[in-house]
Amino acid sequence: MSTMSSLELRTKITSEARLELWLEQVTVPKPAADEVVVRIDAAPLNPSDIILLLGPVDAANIQAGGTPTRPTASASIPPERMPGLEARLDKALPAGNEGAGVVVDAGSDVRALVGRMVAARSPLGMYAQYRVIKASDCLVLPDGISARQGASAIINPLTVLGMVETMRREGHSALVHTAAASNVGQTEVLRLLGAKHVLDSSSPTFRRNLVGALEDTGATLAFDAIGGGTMAGTIVAAMEEALGAKAENFSRYGSPVHKQVYIYGMLNPSPRSLEGNLGMAWGVGGWLMTWFYEKIDSATAQCLRDRVTNELSTTFASHYTSEISLADALSPDVIVAYSRRATGKKFLLRPSGARS
Amino acid sequence: MSTMSSLELRTKITSEARLELWLEQVTVPKPAADEVVVRIDAAPLNPSDIILLLGPVDAANIQAGGTPTRPTASASIPPERMPGLEARLDKALPAGNEGAGVVVDAGSDVRALVGRMVAARSPLGMYAQYRVIKASDCLVLPDGISARQGASAIINPLTVLGMVETMRREGHSALVHTAAASNVGQTEVLRLLGAKHVLDSSSPTFRRNLVGALEDTGATLAFDAIGGGTMAGTIVAAMEEALGAKAENFSRYGSPVHKQVYIYGMLNPSPRSLEGNLGMAWGVGGWLMTWFYEKIDSATAQCLRDRVTNELSTTFASHYTSEISLADALSPDVIVAYSRRATGKKFLLRPSGARS
Repeated sequence: MSTMSSLELRTKITSEARLELWLEQVTVPKPAADEVVVRIDAAPLNPSDIILLLGPVDAANIQAGGTPTRPTASASIPPERMPGLEARLDKALPAGNEGAGVVVDAGSDVRALVGRMVAARSPLGMYAQYRVIKASDCLVLPDGISARQGASAIINPLTVLGMVETMRREGHSALVHTAAASNVGQTEVLRLLGAKHVLDSSSPTFRRNLVGALEDTGATLAFDAIGGGTMAGTIVAAMEEALGAKAENFSRYGSPVHKQVYIYGMLNPSPRSLEGNLGMAWGVGGWLMTWFYEKIDSATAQCLRDRVTNELSTTFASHYTSEISLADALSPDVIVAYSRRATGKKFLLRPSGARS
Repeated sequence: MSTMSSLELRTKITSEARLELWLEQVTVPKPAADEVVVRIDAAPLNPSDIILLLGPVDAANIQAGGTPTRPTASASIPPERMPGLEARLDKALPAGNEGAGVVVDAGSDVRALVGRMVAARSPLGMYAQYRVIKASDCLVLPDGISARQGASAIINPLTVLGMVETMRREGHSALVHTAAASNVGQTEVLRLLGAKHVLDSSSPTFRRNLVGALEDTGATLAFDAIGGGTMAGTIVAAMEEALGAKAENFSRYGSPVHKQVYIYGMLNPSPRSLEGNLGMAWGVGGWLMTWFYEKIDSATAQCLRDRVTNELSTTFASHYTSEISLADALSPDVIVAYSRRATGKKFLLRPSGARS
């Protein structure tokens, strides 16, 4: 294969408090013996991608620049939003946590993968026309699965299965999951899907309803996408209250049953405030899907990955409401649309332009 | 042996917002086959005991009552301090987490213990003249160890050894320990004992000094006695900063090295606020010595207990500045003195009146 070039999306926040987005033209390296070259045909815009792309910028302030084929976008950042960004300052970061596409070249050990559809993650970013990836890091998709169907095969499905696996490994029998868009519409959607315990944290009876649901389910584990504020502590305190209601004797240390909240998102970047009586048997901490799969035994990890590939058109089907190109991803109007992260709206990026 | 009676200290907070302390006269039950009757000759007043005894009452407001041989003490509680006390309302709670004394009677299986000096904990409270305890829950002390020397043989020594054991089990190589009385005098005492990294959180350079000490030691575990406020989060954020200083690449998830703070005290009862950049590999939670020993294998637990009994007059020697009787413990003047919990001042209760 002759030398290939690839356009890749880059995001940078400068010391002068500006956000810059552009498409960088790079030469695609030759794959090593155990690597494949994936033409990236589809990649979702997940909330974590959008946070990396835009940093603390309001989408409405973004200005277009560059040319139609090589557009750029930029915005200035209010000084009060600069703290916390030190680690990424002046670095041209790639973006796009996951995606899917066709293997167009491969190293000598993995030639059999040429022509196969794969899903993959890469720290080098999947918002690129081509990406060289270790074959062992790819999820080879079943025949008949399209790039669109496989684009979100990794993060959300493996996160969900990892949460349930964590629950079993740590001896819990039920779990609480917080989501950001718990508005009335979303709780209705969940109820229609058959969910029994769906709570709205803006309800005046939220705390009482939460304790009731915890008494019913016995849940002593929660995964919290909100991160900051009082939610994680509220859940621990409600679990302690639910356990206390069943306890027969007073103990100054509270219930001996361990209550755990894992924070896996940062939708609220403010400090985490843990209020109320948590007892002594509790834990709050970070949880990251990729680290979880590195920690568990490889047989279990493979079993969970197999489940995802087998159920991509059923349990783990993703739905997208818009498809955009790499250039579109830098258009101020489109940025405003995808940065809304509205419930039920999800954007699919088509880096290569190919419809596989 | 004929029927024995025992005086025991009781503490109660009533729904009418009053604290009541008194001595209850009870009949000592006959020991079961695997139980011993301990005459409690010495019991320390640890901070956790004082918190249970007095609740949220200011010692200065306590009034004496009763008779010289059967004194009582009481105080009213400001309404704003009543929340959080629901679980103990109107319950006559025993007090005294640990103590030591001579076995004066024993069940058929453990007759050999009669006459031996033992240290013990009991949820029934050690501020009592006699207590029936399972022989397996007693730490049999070596010949020549007095009740005064053995009174604090359990909580502090097993806590310290449990912290170091936790550090090893969870893969850390150093730990941070917070203490409440880190005033200049106390830091001097620690330095004289040979401590190298002693920090004062009231110093304007505390945060920088903490990061420096964490870089030097590689500590990624902390035990925090303060509980509320910002200290636990400050330690995690400083650990993340120390790890980040050594990292080569930017990762939005921060360092993959797990940072853990265990909260084992509640010297500050306000909400726990976790501020700053903690990365994703962190945990904060409760830690209780007794639960830790229940969780680990019994051989290791016995090994750690043996270490305590062998080093009671050296490594784990306790120092007391005052000795008081059960009746003294209800005297307003004495309560004011022991409730100060001043650094270097520690009270020893002598429930039985015997000097073993």
